[in-house]
Amino acid sequence: MARVVVDVMLKPEILDPQGQAVANALPRLGVSGVESVRIGKRIEIDFAGDADLDRAREIADKLLANPVIEDFTVRVSDGDA
Amino acid sequence: MARVVVDVMLKPEILDPQGQAVANALPRLGVSGVESVRIGKRIEIDFAGDADLDRAREIADKLLANPVIEDFTVRVSDGDA
Repeated sequence: MARVVVDVMLKPEILDPQGQAVANALPRLGVSGVESVRIGKRIEIDFAGDADLDRAREIADKLLANPVIEDFTVRVSDGDA
Repeated sequence: MARVVVDVMLKPEILDPQGQAVANALPRLGVSGVESVRIGKRIEIDFAGDADLDRAREIADKLLANPVIEDFTVRVSDGDA
């Protein structure tokens, strides 16, 4: 079994209100020094056989990411990331 | 500026209907060989100075993850993951 990880994040020019809400809450919790927080998706795809990056890219493009507002990266999982 | 990445995933024993929906859609798209899909969150925290893993862990624990149903990992971003 092989695992491919797809990370989907909003494009840098797209506002991320969810991340901003977290960033704005931090000072109230006594946490300073954080410049920005951005929240996206992490998808783990387990293949029965070998990891198939091309197939994973196809899945990400068709089902997981909205290419108008999101960028995604595809990589074979190295176990701990 | 230093970036810390927090990955939040549902615990393995918790059902993930969103991931299952994607997995079930794959055969209809002509994609076979995928055993399972699980969908979680990826949060990028940018620190003004050095990356502070302990602080990031505190933020994840308080704001980003629900420890009853989710596990999270915290790591300094190595640039491309």
